Amino acid sequence: MSERVVIIGGDAGGMSAVSQIRRGRPDVEVVALERGRWTSYSACGIPYVVGGVVKGGVERLVARTPERHRELGTDVRIGHEAIALDLDARAVDVRDPDDGTYRLDYDHLLIATGGTPIRPPLPGIDLPFVHGVQTLDDAVDLLEHAEGPCQDVVVVGSGYIGLEMAEAFVQRGCSVTVIEQAAQPMVTLDPDMGTLVAEALLEQGVKLRCGVGVKGFEPGAVLTSDGVVDADLVVLGIGVGPNSKLALEAGLAVGVKDAIRVDERQETSCPGVWAAGDCCESRHLVSDRPVHFALGTYANKQGRVAGINIGGGDAVFPGVLGTAITKICSREIARTGLNEGEAEAAGFDAVASRIESTTTAGYFPDAEPMTVKVVVERGSGRVLGAQIVGGDGAAKRIDTCAAAITAGMTAQQVLDLDLAYAPPFSGVWDPIAVAARQALKLL
Amino acid sequence: MSERVVIIGGDAGGMSAVSQIRRGRPDVEVVALERGRWTSYSACGIPYVVGGVVKGGVERLVARTPERHRELGTDVRIGHEAIALDLDARAVDVRDPDDGTYRLDYDHLLIATGGTPIRPPLPGIDLPFVHGVQTLDDAVDLLEHAEGPCQDVVVVGSGYIGLEMAEAFVQRGCSVTVIEQAAQPMVTLDPDMGTLVAEALLEQGVKLRCGVGVKGFEPGAVLTSDGVVDADLVVLGIGVGPNSKLALEAGLAVGVKDAIRVDERQETSCPGVWAAGDCCESRHLVSDRPVHFALGTYANKQGRVAGINIGGGDAVFPGVLGTAITKICSREIARTGLNEGEAEAAGFDAVASRIESTTTAGYFPDAEPMTVKVVVERGSGRVLGAQIVGGDGAAKRIDTCAAAITAGMTAQQVLDLDLAYAPPFSGVWDPIAVAARQALKLL
Repeated sequence: MSERVVIIGGDAGGMSAVSQIRRGRPDVEVVALERGRWTSYSACGIPYVVGGVVKGGVERLVARTPERHRELGTDVRIGHEAIALDLDARAVDVRDPDDGTYRLDYDHLLIATGGTPIRPPLPGIDLPFVHGVQTLDDAVDLLEHAEGPCQDVVVVGSGYIGLEMAEAFVQRGCSVTVIEQAAQPMVTLDPDMGTLVAEALLEQGVKLRCGVGVKGFEPGAVLTSDGVVDADLVVLGIGVGPNSKLALEAGLAVGVKDAIRVDERQETSCPGVWAAGDCCESRHLVSDRPVHFALGTYANKQGRVAGINIGGGDAVFPGVLGTAITKICSREIARTGLNEGEAEAAGFDAVASRIESTTTAGYFPDAEPMTVKVVVERGSGRVLGAQIVGGDGAAKRIDTCAAAITAGMTAQQVLDLDLAYAPPFSGVWDPIAVAARQALKLL
Repeated sequence: MSERVVIIGGDAGGMSAVSQIRRGRPDVEVVALERGRWTSYSACGIPYVVGGVVKGGVERLVARTPERHRELGTDVRIGHEAIALDLDARAVDVRDPDDGTYRLDYDHLLIATGGTPIRPPLPGIDLPFVHGVQTLDDAVDLLEHAEGPCQDVVVVGSGYIGLEMAEAFVQRGCSVTVIEQAAQPMVTLDPDMGTLVAEALLEQGVKLRCGVGVKGFEPGAVLTSDGVVDADLVVLGIGVGPNSKLALEAGLAVGVKDAIRVDERQETSCPGVWAAGDCCESRHLVSDRPVHFALGTYANKQGRVAGINIGGGDAVFPGVLGTAITKICSREIARTGLNEGEAEAAGFDAVASRIESTTTAGYFPDAEPMTVKVVVERGSGRVLGAQIVGGDGAAKRIDTCAAAITAGMTAQQVLDLDLAYAPPFSGVWDPIAVAARQALKLL
């Protein structure tokens, strides 16, 4: 009898493994358990479907349907939920769509249970008008609201998904209020960069309530530390935690935020049991500490690495920088590595330079502002992190910083980089080089 | 008496040194000799003034006028041409605007004489309707033609400046023919990528004559290996050579294309004599060979390095990748490092992967094609070069490759990079990662 790989979770972390497993071990049986009804979809695309940028419904976000996976040889079981792991017996207990249960033996197990939007235990949090943004079923609900007579939308939290959803509902003509506990939106940026995001939101007509705490929800209203805010619909954008319940109950080692602990090969504390995606920890390449980020790119890469290893190969996932990017109306926003606050918290003696430049040569008619901040370690001169807020074409340049940080480059080495120049793309001193040069002056 | 630094050439290579010299040695006298009438300008901006994208005349391209330089303490001498160097006596012979000559002693000399558009010795090459694109005086001439009743423009050569000028005249409503000896335009790209540039030119209405040699010029016509082409105006875009005549005559060491040889500190073979910009050689970071590229970014950086060293500091210019970028109508084009042909010529055993991706998530309405090619060394897996041709937002991503190549990263390490992802910017697998992954399969 051939070996069996069981995958729990039909999205990126799990399904990215399949082709790698098959390449390594063509004869293996692969069973994928998915408690929902979708596989291999782009949750990151939800705001763009809700906002009407992407037409044609949530189906457009599905890269590969269960049917297609089955045609390719994977036994995808939709509506089947893994409810318990027996690591000693190497078996998963599964609840089927008819509420029956059965036991499934495995030779290798890949846990890819994803993340869960954080829902703080506030009064009224379970009211039906309070929505997370995680699955395509969430997207279907939100789209229905967006296309309906929805007037007042409140977004709680101002992370990437929160602000993208705020923009989506503005595009639908709703009145949108963003409530953020911190003094600035997007706390993954330093406050001075967050201010630029606040400006972009205000320009777009979003009502921004920073320094305000949410106390609870009542039908039609959000109760805050600063009064009652009307709401037909609440979107939770407070972040996503790891969905590691099964792993925890089975006794697998967990770490930060209870995310499943894995080694570089994505293997958990139990040999033959692997994990990938939002449910597991990563190592931060700058701080060398374990971290939890829920990002689709990591899920895809980790799934691929797990699949290669399950298939008998040898691959590693070296770690992450927390690189993230978004576009809020006309403003592009990105970050990588450590921000100033994170660098300090991680024990680095760091300085930060922030410079103003433009997305094209300054004499171009469509030059737009572009602010670059780099965080640099005193002494070594090593770049620890970077943030960019700016106009069209600004944010994806963060990748240059990501490559430089991964390579352990100093600010001097970044200044020396042979970055592309032509007037439609930057001034002769690239904004990233200008930021590095400014940092050198501070060192 | 204070020391004197003499700078020959009032553009980027020379004038970038000034503030650094002054920072290191506030008391030094700085004399800058400029045979033309402009200082510190962006020659790269000329096509955009000629095309009418940048309004307000060539003055818009001047970052710092002679007057402003003088206010800041530099003795800028417009219309003064250095005509000979006496390295033993540490003196420059200068012709002044009234055709008189005088001798100027120096303690340090910075040669920043720039580049000269290549003018092959063809019959009629000196006819007044045959123009180079190098100085702002060239730009004034070209702008006059562009705004006049010019009908038929022929661009000889299809490098960056040539194609940018072709686009500029198309935007002015002229009929433009590009004549290129090679089988594809833009020979700094591999032919398979050059094909994509050819498509962009044809879409825009440029008549492209590849595989055609120019035999000479007659008033109103260009004589080619494939017949006569009508022309009111000819633009030479065959490349720029180093203007190293003075240095050669004085006996300074030269290298590739007679470019002035310098060490990492930008010092020539004669101590106290420095060179920066289009007149001098650079070291290629991948091939480790001396090369000559005429690029504004190098001039600025090399001038800065020379200035720091003249000022008593210690700076190095580590080398170049030949990173270049342009935008031809809606198509963005960029390259860095070695292309396939160059890698072979440099003795590398290389493989190349070329992939098709999109500038946003594929399900986005404005997703545009983006082709990425990476050249990778067999065995080591090291990335040697990259090329990108694609829609809006595609080309500046070449900087990520430039950083990776500078760091000596392998294709696997590029695949592992934590590159930014959100649907408005790329698919979940960044196009550069996809190219790296494809290269891994070939290795």
